[in-house]
Amino acid sequence: MPRMSLGEFDLIARYFHRPPGAGPRRAIVGNGDDCAVIAPAAGMQLALSTDTLVEGRHFLSTVNPARLGHKALAVNLSDLAACGARPLGFTLALTLPRVEENWLASFARGLLDLADKHDCELLGGDTTAGPLAIGITVFGEVPAGQALLRGGARVGDDIWVSGHPGEARLALEAFRGSLRPPLDGDALEACRLAMECPTPRVALGEGLRGRASAAIDVSDGLLGDLGHILARSHVGADLFADDLPRSRWLLQRPDAEQLDCILAGGDDYELLFTAAPAQRTDIAALGVNLSLPLTRIGRIRAEPGRTIWSAGRGQPLADRWVSFDHFKGGA
Amino acid sequence: MPRMSLGEFDLIARYFHRPPGAGPRRAIVGNGDDCAVIAPAAGMQLALSTDTLVEGRHFLSTVNPARLGHKALAVNLSDLAACGARPLGFTLALTLPRVEENWLASFARGLLDLADKHDCELLGGDTTAGPLAIGITVFGEVPAGQALLRGGARVGDDIWVSGHPGEARLALEAFRGSLRPPLDGDALEACRLAMECPTPRVALGEGLRGRASAAIDVSDGLLGDLGHILARSHVGADLFADDLPRSRWLLQRPDAEQLDCILAGGDDYELLFTAAPAQRTDIAALGVNLSLPLTRIGRIRAEPGRTIWSAGRGQPLADRWVSFDHFKGGA
Repeated sequence: MPRMSLGEFDLIARYFHRPPGAGPRRAIVGNGDDCAVIAPAAGMQLALSTDTLVEGRHFLSTVNPARLGHKALAVNLSDLAACGARPLGFTLALTLPRVEENWLASFARGLLDLADKHDCELLGGDTTAGPLAIGITVFGEVPAGQALLRGGARVGDDIWVSGHPGEARLALEAFRGSLRPPLDGDALEACRLAMECPTPRVALGEGLRGRASAAIDVSDGLLGDLGHILARSHVGADLFADDLPRSRWLLQRPDAEQLDCILAGGDDYELLFTAAPAQRTDIAALGVNLSLPLTRIGRIRAEPGRTIWSAGRGQPLADRWVSFDHFKGGA
Repeated sequence: MPRMSLGEFDLIARYFHRPPGAGPRRAIVGNGDDCAVIAPAAGMQLALSTDTLVEGRHFLSTVNPARLGHKALAVNLSDLAACGARPLGFTLALTLPRVEENWLASFARGLLDLADKHDCELLGGDTTAGPLAIGITVFGEVPAGQALLRGGARVGDDIWVSGHPGEARLALEAFRGSLRPPLDGDALEACRLAMECPTPRVALGEGLRGRASAAIDVSDGLLGDLGHILARSHVGADLFADDLPRSRWLLQRPDAEQLDCILAGGDDYELLFTAAPAQRTDIAALGVNLSLPLTRIGRIRAEPGRTIWSAGRGQPLADRWVSFDHFKGGA
């Protein structure tokens, strides 16, 4: 069956077309031809990543469409950040059950506002009728050989995390009605913003080039994503529970709930990275420059696996956290 | 909510991982890190395109999964072909309602067989639980400034089409039960293959660099896609109904049905292109070399719009064909 029609083409043109002068222009051939054509600058390599958000799985039908547009791009920019790449552009594959003009206008605004902020051009798109889903593939450039990878962690490296992971999960549990006591209004609003409008740590990723030995963005939960670094780097980790950054909203919650949210919450889009101890001063300065808390939470060790040490570091905590699995239901 | 789990990662690794030595290796950083990293060769630009196939819209749940895997990549390679780019790699965003191992193994085989045939590497992926959909973004390279575009058609150019458009639509109508008389078994099988296993015209697209003035792949129907070339090129077209290539299966059908399928069928993935008359010999030779029929079906004119001339070219046909619109239902 045909995949694109004049009607759909008009639709895309209307909501996603940028008038001349608005938004970045990177493509040699832009949106609307069979392909977009781009060329990384001399000495640069092209980093690319793809992520899809599906209604009912990654967001609820009631979410503000501007926030959804923001988030759909943010989770992809977060992958670029994790490899230290500077955003160039993206493609958008939009599956929509129907055409709702207000919804589309708002979605496009949220999406393109974030794109403009990162100088990231919409390079092409595809619209289909079907269950609501947003697929984005994002492109960035990184100096040859300088991409941050998961496999570079070395024994003795510090383990760092940006920001305050756990808030998104706290909001999710609040919406699920599982929190006792419930979140108060301010906490709910703040954590909901973390869940619905994550900030991709693009400038941090660029700043970590040449400093971090390995990096990943926290989408599945800190422990799950740390597991990817450990597996790729063939090392293990000691984490210190009392060093974990705890946001003001998490600090109001029971300690076990704090740890659940921080360690296994997911949907954070903070960067988790490792770096040699010699980098501590530079990394601390980077955090200050970016007004972004960067916290050392552990250390890479030779022995495989992970140990989470309790306060005082004398006792390992029982490790009850497992990664969320989409095909097994929520964690 | 988290987007990827260890379970899903295992799933991808199992069905889509290529052992060393199997399949092309283009990525500097491959599948499994936050981003893939690639670098076009010196003097090359990167062409990219994205397309999503959704169950119930682009395919039926009963389709052979190997053919579905083939088609999901084929429709994207067809976009590269339309701009004259040589395939490099692709990303896969797979939304699955459940994990069915036989289905996945077969889907992956169909997909990767076609990828290998075109030396096109799987660069990254994302798996989500949800209604079945396959999103692919494909990358290719094209010498700087040589991409075929939609906007280059000039008055006096010939209009060409490859292969035999219309067979896919004939199969679709057969499955809808709308054909009187019905298709016989051989015709149905051949047309079904055209619908389910289209051949992307990659070598033709490369061969047309420097020869075609404009090109597009036929996904929405020949007239709809011609409309994109005309709009971009600010020209019109005369088409000659008796010059349209008619496959042996179409020739068995009533004339009005032949024209409906060829002109407005869609899902063909043939290339529709324009070229100056001086290119006729070279283009004919290209068709012979590729064992692919290339047929001149009309001429670009200055006056906007399109006219379809009947046999003998004395009379314009009443133009009853409109493009298929996903949001208005089938054509």
